[in-house]
Amino acid sequence: MGMVGGGTGSFIGDVHRKAAAIDGMIELVCGAFSSTAEKSITSGIALGLDETRCYGTFEEMIVKEKALPEDVRMDFVVIVTPNHMHFPPAKLALENGFHVVCDKPVTLTLDEAEALQDVVAKSGKLFALTHNYTGNSMVKQAKAMVAKGELGTIRKIQAQYLQGWLSTSLEKTEQKQAAWRVDPKRSGIGGALGDIGTHAENLIEYVTGLKIEEIAADLGRFGEGRVLDDDGNMLIRMENGAKGTISISQIALGEENNLGIKVYGTKGSIEWYQENPNELTARWLEAPKTIYTPNGNGLHDEALAVCRIPAGHPEGYLEAFATIYKNFALHLSAVNEGKTIENPDYPTITDGVRGMKFIYAAVESDKNNANWTKI
Amino acid sequence: MGMVGGGTGSFIGDVHRKAAAIDGMIELVCGAFSSTAEKSITSGIALGLDETRCYGTFEEMIVKEKALPEDVRMDFVVIVTPNHMHFPPAKLALENGFHVVCDKPVTLTLDEAEALQDVVAKSGKLFALTHNYTGNSMVKQAKAMVAKGELGTIRKIQAQYLQGWLSTSLEKTEQKQAAWRVDPKRSGIGGALGDIGTHAENLIEYVTGLKIEEIAADLGRFGEGRVLDDDGNMLIRMENGAKGTISISQIALGEENNLGIKVYGTKGSIEWYQENPNELTARWLEAPKTIYTPNGNGLHDEALAVCRIPAGHPEGYLEAFATIYKNFALHLSAVNEGKTIENPDYPTITDGVRGMKFIYAAVESDKNNANWTKI
Amino acid sequence: MGMVGGGTGSFIGDVHRKAAAIDGMIELVCGAFSSTAEKSITSGIALGLDETRCYGTFEEMIVKEKALPEDVRMDFVVIVTPNHMHFPPAKLALENGFHVVCDKPVTLTLDEAEALQDVVAKSGKLFALTHNYTGNSMVKQAKAMVAKGELGTIRKIQAQYLQGWLSTSLEKTEQKQAAWRVDPKRSGIGGALGDIGTHAENLIEYVTGLKIEEIAADLGRFGEGRVLDDDGNMLIRMENGAKGTISISQIALGEENNLGIKVYGTKGSIEWYQENPNELTARWLEAPKTIYTPNGNGLHDEALAVCRIPAGHPEGYLEAFATIYKNFALHLSAVNEGKTIENPDYPTITDGVRGMKFIYAAVESDKNNANWTKI
Amino acid sequence: MGMVGGGTGSFIGDVHRKAAAIDGMIELVCGAFSSTAEKSITSGIALGLDETRCYGTFEEMIVKEKALPEDVRMDFVVIVTPNHMHFPPAKLALENGFHVVCDKPVTLTLDEAEALQDVVAKSGKLFALTHNYTGNSMVKQAKAMVAKGELGTIRKIQAQYLQGWLSTSLEKTEQKQAAWRVDPKRSGIGGALGDIGTHAENLIEYVTGLKIEEIAADLGRFGEGRVLDDDGNMLIRMENGAKGTISISQIALGEENNLGIKVYGTKGSIEWYQENPNELTARWLEAPKTIYTPNGNGLHDEALAVCRIPAGHPEGYLEAFATIYKNFALHLSAVNEGKTIENPDYPTITDGVRGMKFIYAAVESDKNNANWTKI
Repeated sequence: MGMVGGGTGSFIGDVHRKAAAIDGMIELVCGAFSSTAEKSITSGIALGLDETRCYGTFEEMIVKEKALPEDVRMDFVVIVTPNHMHFPPAKLALENGFHVVCDKPVTLTLDEAEALQDVVAKSGKLFALTHNYTGNSMVKQAKAMVAKGELGTIRKIQAQYLQGWLSTSLEKTEQKQAAWRVDPKRSGIGGALGDIGTHAENLIEYVTGLKIEEIAADLGRFGEGRVLDDDGNMLIRMENGAKGTISISQIALGEENNLGIKVYGTKGSIEWYQENPNELTARWLEAPKTIYTPNGNGLHDEALAVCRIPAGHPEGYLEAFATIYKNFALHLSAVNEGKTIENPDYPTITDGVRGMKFIYAAVESDKNNANWTKI
Repeated sequence: MGMVGGGTGSFIGDVHRKAAAIDGMIELVCGAFSSTAEKSITSGIALGLDETRCYGTFEEMIVKEKALPEDVRMDFVVIVTPNHMHFPPAKLALENGFHVVCDKPVTLTLDEAEALQDVVAKSGKLFALTHNYTGNSMVKQAKAMVAKGELGTIRKIQAQYLQGWLSTSLEKTEQKQAAWRVDPKRSGIGGALGDIGTHAENLIEYVTGLKIEEIAADLGRFGEGRVLDDDGNMLIRMENGAKGTISISQIALGEENNLGIKVYGTKGSIEWYQENPNELTARWLEAPKTIYTPNGNGLHDEALAVCRIPAGHPEGYLEAFATIYKNFALHLSAVNEGKTIENPDYPTITDGVRGMKFIYAAVESDKNNANWTKI
Repeated sequence: MGMVGGGTGSFIGDVHRKAAAIDGMIELVCGAFSSTAEKSITSGIALGLDETRCYGTFEEMIVKEKALPEDVRMDFVVIVTPNHMHFPPAKLALENGFHVVCDKPVTLTLDEAEALQDVVAKSGKLFALTHNYTGNSMVKQAKAMVAKGELGTIRKIQAQYLQGWLSTSLEKTEQKQAAWRVDPKRSGIGGALGDIGTHAENLIEYVTGLKIEEIAADLGRFGEGRVLDDDGNMLIRMENGAKGTISISQIALGEENNLGIKVYGTKGSIEWYQENPNELTARWLEAPKTIYTPNGNGLHDEALAVCRIPAGHPEGYLEAFATIYKNFALHLSAVNEGKTIENPDYPTITDGVRGMKFIYAAVESDKNNANWTKI
Repeated sequence: MGMVGGGTGSFIGDVHRKAAAIDGMIELVCGAFSSTAEKSITSGIALGLDETRCYGTFEEMIVKEKALPEDVRMDFVVIVTPNHMHFPPAKLALENGFHVVCDKPVTLTLDEAEALQDVVAKSGKLFALTHNYTGNSMVKQAKAMVAKGELGTIRKIQAQYLQGWLSTSLEKTEQKQAAWRVDPKRSGIGGALGDIGTHAENLIEYVTGLKIEEIAADLGRFGEGRVLDDDGNMLIRMENGAKGTISISQIALGEENNLGIKVYGTKGSIEWYQENPNELTARWLEAPKTIYTPNGNGLHDEALAVCRIPAGHPEGYLEAFATIYKNFALHLSAVNEGKTIENPDYPTITDGVRGMKFIYAAVESDKNNANWTKI
């Protein structure tokens, strides 16, 4: 793979590289890691790359890699830049015959997302969006339980994604992660909404197989001078009549990365938290509560398929992230071998467009004093 | 004390009796336990009462007890009937010089609640409302931490009260608890709202010392044929600008009695769950998470004051309930001795009126498609 | 009931009174609360007793109560003094026709325990020993699961009772609880062994229905100048070939009252901790882990029988303690009515003698460098 | 690196490869993966290796790799075979100038371990033993807290390593992992002792910085026909006078991989469990319990140094394993660059010899009816 962004000091670039490495299926071969050629080369060399494949711009990377022999050049591009720099390299890569893995939210604007959807369709190339949390085996188990009807009809859903790292005015310090996330030019119209809210939205729709139909959103901008949301409380109504809440925050002081979901049905219920990812709690009408664990007893094949190590050996954030890469790599290999895969299990441009619609609906609802707004 | 309601087979009557007994300060001396004199006498005798003090009606009880010598007659009336039967005995008792302890929600309607507030004021008698969960030592600790400014300015609040016992149509069976709770004539305009929602509302205002200013409520009526809410998702805005959610349910399958609260401030945050009441989690800007326990290290006097046994000896639902009775009994003793107590720590008619306003605001908001509604 | 010991300031006397009060079946009518008549009267009056029934000595109490009319005098004596003062009042009470409830360990010495066993037998009176933790509903559930063979053959057992309150030299302060517990004259030959070790031993034998056959004990005396054990690590072998450990401590700094047990069989396993008493974890060969809760799904009748309140309403230390009293009171009522009860479910003098044998075996083993010693 | 063992279907070989890959510092370049050249080649090719570097035997690998140019040939050998096949390749590799990473226990016998210690010393090469659990950041935090005196003097230690996967006669099925572990020819004189007991022993000595001086071990052989221990309960005495227990099992039904440690000192205590590795609990004399998390508040540099991702992003088994590889790789790089590193932080041959002495002492103690035996 070839990476756009993720130079020395980047948080998420390093995560992508580690996640891609775990299963030994993907190799980093080139990159345009930084805004200057010099920094890009320094970063690439530190990563063990050949200097000739450390490019100054993503345009240069795409053009020069395309010119390389097929068995040498990168198979796909991974984009780990701030949101405003997702669309341009994604479009260019796809139009030049490269598959794409892209961080979320998929683009800066909804228009871009819909345009990109067209580009993907026309290109016939693969596009993966790293809603990494859906890679957890316990999330797969939850999804399978819902799909098989074990929970009955879903009635109530609660999702949360709570962080506290923007409790203070971190963006006014040297912290790079904070600076672009509170800047509409680089983040888009959503702050926490785009950064973490889309994960919550995606998790709900992935696990339940139901679409969120409308939301009523009350966003907060608690940090001094912030124009983008750093907190949000939302009511949701699902397409099947289920109701629920989404609560997100980056000013929930002391919370680290508390993504969680509860789904209540007419036969059973499930509960899962990302910070303790190796436990899935299920509740039942007449039986006692059960706790599922990766590679433990009672799992469906969909969950077992993504467990790497025996029960009791905890898998974490990187492993779930790696599962997105693994499923993408398996699909890509199949495609390269001229095969097809039914329902490849990783988030795509469709999830990306949903996420952008979610952000836009939430922002619009908030402007209208939390009026119900269709997604 | 003399009890109205709570005959054989009643759940909450038994809870009140056990809670009142724990600290050895209160004795049950009479009661009008049931709708017929016969059943009332049977219940009373089973409880070890003298037959002559088992009355057929609350009117009879109040009249006859009043006629007894002062040192024999009951000191106060406790009302544990369904909601529609709170106001009449409360009013009569107060007007005849008896103090009152009453289950929540305080009355059937908001009008009744406000009328009762006047009656209490005129009577000069004590009135306690059993928002029992505020009796937990860890709730007292949380309140004290907020009051002392340890959390800084409150920004975000999330409360939940999740049960699953009405997931099925339990009211169509012989289950008495279910039948009246889904019946507007006996419950009032709120279903889950009155039964458990008021506890969540009261807990928020008790812990934070802040009033909920307005709410946007999306209520569910999932049980077949139900006219009252059995589920609710709400956005809240506090008087100080904090935002949050309240989620309540009696159809959250598998949940037992999951009342919980999270409060996030600019300096610290707290989290507490009723099902695990002996732990209060606090998070801090720069220090690691701390866990407080009853009679454990680091508690404020307000919490220590209500701990009965050494650290590590868990207190439960009854003990917290008993604390309401204990504080009421201490106040009553003081009053009887002609003393005054500053800020006696138990819920009063004021909390009762707040609770009714909360129910009414939520129902109105829900009728208007979850529009923001002032409490 | 009439109480021996437990005057103002006593910890365990208050616990006994509260526990006895919860279920409304037992009334405190008299007591010899203190070593002087004056203190005893003060304590008794504070507890609402008639001054005439506050006695200066247990001998006086037993003699004078016996002289009262049958329907007035106490039904049974409860003994809550330090260990050295268990045997004399117990013996006298039984010999004068009173039933007895006694705190553990049952006596100061093994000889006394065996002598008391004879006295109980001769008297034909009831004798309850307050191994209160066996009153927990989840302990009853665990015992029932083992008894019904759900765990298969038991192979491994681990029990612990960890406290940290004697980490410092608390006995050198004014703390009364500490002083007698480290004093062989008042505690006997066991320190932590008697105070908490017997609870662990009793819990193992109660849950598994198996006797501990032999132990290898390595005791610690970490507190400066202590002659009695304040810590102990033990290997155990059960009569059926199962093996395991018991670890006890009063110098396990920061532990509050951490009694716990794990039992592993050939079909299933259970795990329970007193500090979180409302959860029983079970593990299975092929099914996922299950969590039982009081009055929750899947409980056996033996557990349901002692649950007081609906699922999700936590019961605590006092409630479990109260269950011992309740079962004793039910037995006593039956006896008074000339009925018999099969296998009344509370600890008796037999448990008391086992406990003393456990202490003696552990101390002997420790003297012999942890040699295996039969109980 | 070049791998010995770990062919297709191997559990631990795959773990080593994934762990070595995560940080992007190590590349698998060759291997002798299987007992036959054919299988080895198949495995190697599946792993993306060049066929010419898939060897039939470790001897062949070492000889042929040595013959390659320095910048091509493997830097070090990693040995992931059953225990009896650790010593021969380790010795040969070291004697031929290759560094070694070896799975634990280090060898089949204590003699071999001591011989290997000499070989390592003579060779001047690096030797890492994969006691992977010490790679967890929370273990590093615990060690740092002890080292800095925050817990005071250590008095009590409890370690456990509980698994249930050998509850049934798994070795009589096709399960390869089980077969060699119960076979003395391939495992050595310890069963569970070698497989998991050494991890517990190593964790204790790593965290506390104290040596176990003597143990009293009661081993179980519960599985039908087993000659090696599948369960063990042990008393331990530390060099500083602290006492404690180690309990290990592979027949603790339902336990997955429950390694844990509790250390109690005179000022503070810590508790950690491998299945929930992202939490370290600390208890204090006067302050409330604190919970540390990776990259969370309050960590020492030693812990922070091995955290890869922001707080709240759980790291798991593979990440801890990877930390061993990372620290080894950093040391190797330094050595290759002619630098020295002070106290490189990964387990070495010294830990390997300690582990073998632990196994031998435990087996001897068990033969002598759990007599105290020096390590």
